Amino acid sequence: MTPEEFRRTGHALVDWIAEYRAGIERLPVMSPAAPGATRAQFPAAPPERGAPMDVVLADLDRVILPGITHWNHPGFFAYFPSNTSLASVLADLAAAGLGAQCMSWQTSPAATELEEVVMDWLRQMVGLSRQFTGVIQGFASTATLVALLCARERSTNFSQTRGGLQAEEKPLVVYASEESHSSVWKAAMLAGFGKAHLHLIETDENHALIPKKLEIAMQDDDERGMRPCAVVATTGTTNSTALDPVSDMAMLAKLWGAWLHVDAAMAGDAMILPECRWMWQGIEGADSIVLNPHKWLGVGPDFSAYFVQDPQHLVRTMSTNPAYLRTAQDTEVRNFRDWGIPLGRRFRALKLWFVLRDQGVEGLQARLRRDLQNAQWLKEAVDAAPDWQRTAPVHLQTLCIRHVPAGAADGAALDAHNLSIAETINRGGRAYVTPSVLKGKQIIRVSIGAETTERRHVEALWAELRAAARGR
Amino acid sequence: MTPEEFRRTGHALVDWIAEYRAGIERLPVMSPAAPGATRAQFPAAPPERGAPMDVVLADLDRVILPGITHWNHPGFFAYFPSNTSLASVLADLAAAGLGAQCMSWQTSPAATELEEVVMDWLRQMVGLSRQFTGVIQGFASTATLVALLCARERSTNFSQTRGGLQAEEKPLVVYASEESHSSVWKAAMLAGFGKAHLHLIETDENHALIPKKLEIAMQDDDERGMRPCAVVATTGTTNSTALDPVSDMAMLAKLWGAWLHVDAAMAGDAMILPECRWMWQGIEGADSIVLNPHKWLGVGPDFSAYFVQDPQHLVRTMSTNPAYLRTAQDTEVRNFRDWGIPLGRRFRALKLWFVLRDQGVEGLQARLRRDLQNAQWLKEAVDAAPDWQRTAPVHLQTLCIRHVPAGAADGAALDAHNLSIAETINRGGRAYVTPSVLKGKQIIRVSIGAETTERRHVEALWAELRAAARGR
Repeated sequence: MTPEEFRRTGHALVDWIAEYRAGIERLPVMSPAAPGATRAQFPAAPPERGAPMDVVLADLDRVILPGITHWNHPGFFAYFPSNTSLASVLADLAAAGLGAQCMSWQTSPAATELEEVVMDWLRQMVGLSRQFTGVIQGFASTATLVALLCARERSTNFSQTRGGLQAEEKPLVVYASEESHSSVWKAAMLAGFGKAHLHLIETDENHALIPKKLEIAMQDDDERGMRPCAVVATTGTTNSTALDPVSDMAMLAKLWGAWLHVDAAMAGDAMILPECRWMWQGIEGADSIVLNPHKWLGVGPDFSAYFVQDPQHLVRTMSTNPAYLRTAQDTEVRNFRDWGIPLGRRFRALKLWFVLRDQGVEGLQARLRRDLQNAQWLKEAVDAAPDWQRTAPVHLQTLCIRHVPAGAADGAALDAHNLSIAETINRGGRAYVTPSVLKGKQIIRVSIGAETTERRHVEALWAELRAAARGR
Repeated sequence: MTPEEFRRTGHALVDWIAEYRAGIERLPVMSPAAPGATRAQFPAAPPERGAPMDVVLADLDRVILPGITHWNHPGFFAYFPSNTSLASVLADLAAAGLGAQCMSWQTSPAATELEEVVMDWLRQMVGLSRQFTGVIQGFASTATLVALLCARERSTNFSQTRGGLQAEEKPLVVYASEESHSSVWKAAMLAGFGKAHLHLIETDENHALIPKKLEIAMQDDDERGMRPCAVVATTGTTNSTALDPVSDMAMLAKLWGAWLHVDAAMAGDAMILPECRWMWQGIEGADSIVLNPHKWLGVGPDFSAYFVQDPQHLVRTMSTNPAYLRTAQDTEVRNFRDWGIPLGRRFRALKLWFVLRDQGVEGLQARLRRDLQNAQWLKEAVDAAPDWQRTAPVHLQTLCIRHVPAGAADGAALDAHNLSIAETINRGGRAYVTPSVLKGKQIIRVSIGAETTERRHVEALWAELRAAARGR
């Protein structure tokens, strides 16, 4: 493809995206495609010869689009907001066009330095002190693994330089709440701690970790010859945006010399609103924090922001220094390849830069406040409806709700009824919610925060939920 | 930004990229920016209010571009080819525009199924049997970590479900050649094996692992109470594209019940040429293989292709199953979130699809053959020049060369002379090479394979090298 062909096809693709986004509301949110339906439309063998790209764009529309679940749809209430704002789309285009590989400073100085700039802007935006330094990781799950690896190495005085974790005498233990994200559990497994050394601590009626239970667990483990290594606090759990008591956990972590990692993957974005910062009170006691601008701030995935108090743990755990990677500037610059797991790095800083230039901090704040208000509206509607229950507080934009018809008792039938409501909504195509289980009860989880979601979409969802509960 | 504003700015950005690519040869390959120069052009605080995006595009040109090292420049001979072909740029644009998050099948069925399709196409293209199943990982470094984690879990009958690596009695050992990539060493450290349990095996005069040495090491370790867990063979080392004897290593791995991972990050791309497949003879004995279409096949990063014999090891090591991730289709589809470390996944399959539709397998093959011929041309030129030495065979497109003036002896002065040649070239702006060290000697490493690199660029590089060696 010549630059001229690229120009022509690129314009057509930009137009296609503009039309897709302008008309997104008319599409079913969750793809109705059956398993195998997309795959069946492709030949078994790769194309031997090239073809004009306008045919490929037609296929994109005809074959791919029906298999897409539309995360930027105003009826997207599932999982978490994952907006790829149009400014972020442009940044991805620019990054691909430049094709820079940013493993080292020298391999594109602007990529490293723009990352330093936007990560420091983000630090200020969420109200963290200058004690924190930021770096982009891929996803929160990867950032949490990075945190546990650093914790493991700090606790063992860098056992990796000797016999590794397998040569340590005292087993290390990781603590998190029973409502912490599955990626915390996975990270503990991948880092080699083992399920027996991951202590999931009980939560209170608001689904937040009970600090007294953590205190007892750490004490008991120590007495049993184990060593507290890392504590993971969640600010805004996935299921219900529960808020672990960061201050208390920071104190306990400090007492035992354990690493405190704060998983604020989604809720951390809300810290650009000063009125939300009580939610992670004590955050300055964290060794590391992850929050995802690729969730609620309009930055397309992947863009996890990872903040640490002391980058030296990162560098000591992650760096290698083979001859073919050394550069003349190594002593005076940051080589971000040593700040994470993968060697290769794309130029992701452009995304936050473009979004901030387009919307400004005030624009982002206004949108988040709109979503919080929409969540409060739905909360009040649910609370006023006699047959509906909320099973968690609404701190932010997530609601955990459950339809309980008069006289219905907890149990399998009621769970099936609520699962069926969620599936009816999802198959209907106008909204997409996540069925989940909270403290053993089937719930319908509504996460508000797509860029395009206005009050009328939340109102329409509420009408659909009630209709589905009535069996239409 | 409205879809209409996106359309306008998107067209302008497409034009900017087209002009950038068309005129790339006039730019200095390695950015001449001084440390801190880019950063200094940004305000200390984030923008409070949004601004029109045309200003941002102007800044992209004025502030960012001078800080870019141009990986798609015809004078790019550093590191490895990392072409982001223009078809791949369009795919990144399409992926961002769709904004799909592909952690589960249901969250965009087309993304999962297109990944299945293109990974099977790629399997056929590189001549692997149907025994292998492919999945996209981010970078080779991540894929190698995934391989060592699966090896660790297979060797311990899934210790992560019990006390983890820290509860194992017999230390596990990982083997790789002393010329294996630093990411192999890093993966062994991150997986918890520890430096003492990473055995780097001696290489022969062609920098390939000596199988007899591996055999002895495995035997010795067993006798010392350790357990061989994983063997990493490299097809095409980073320094010199050395070829480890995969067949012999597969036999030894099998003998000891160890996992065989083949790191073919760059050279694996060449396996689309049947005449190159002797290089990884015995590949069918591998448990896992990584190769990077984002290196030499025109697919922009990140796109590492990871092939395994038995996906169950991946799924058992990587999967979690919280209520909020369960979907109605879980038993009949692949949820790729369980096939790698991060939960989140972008829609990367589009990139290989677009590139193959644009160029076809034949187009890619023709380009790789051109690059191999250019490398042979340079090899012959170097071999014919009395003052130049090659310190490794030229299997593919990488040359390790060294200027040795008549009468010069090995040592610090000669090393400094060669480092200085590389730095002169890089500062000159017309070409970019990688200074490295091979078997203790400073070399100049020339990696040929940018899409835009024609014979004339290799000839120009050779003229520059000789001029720099003469001190101009």
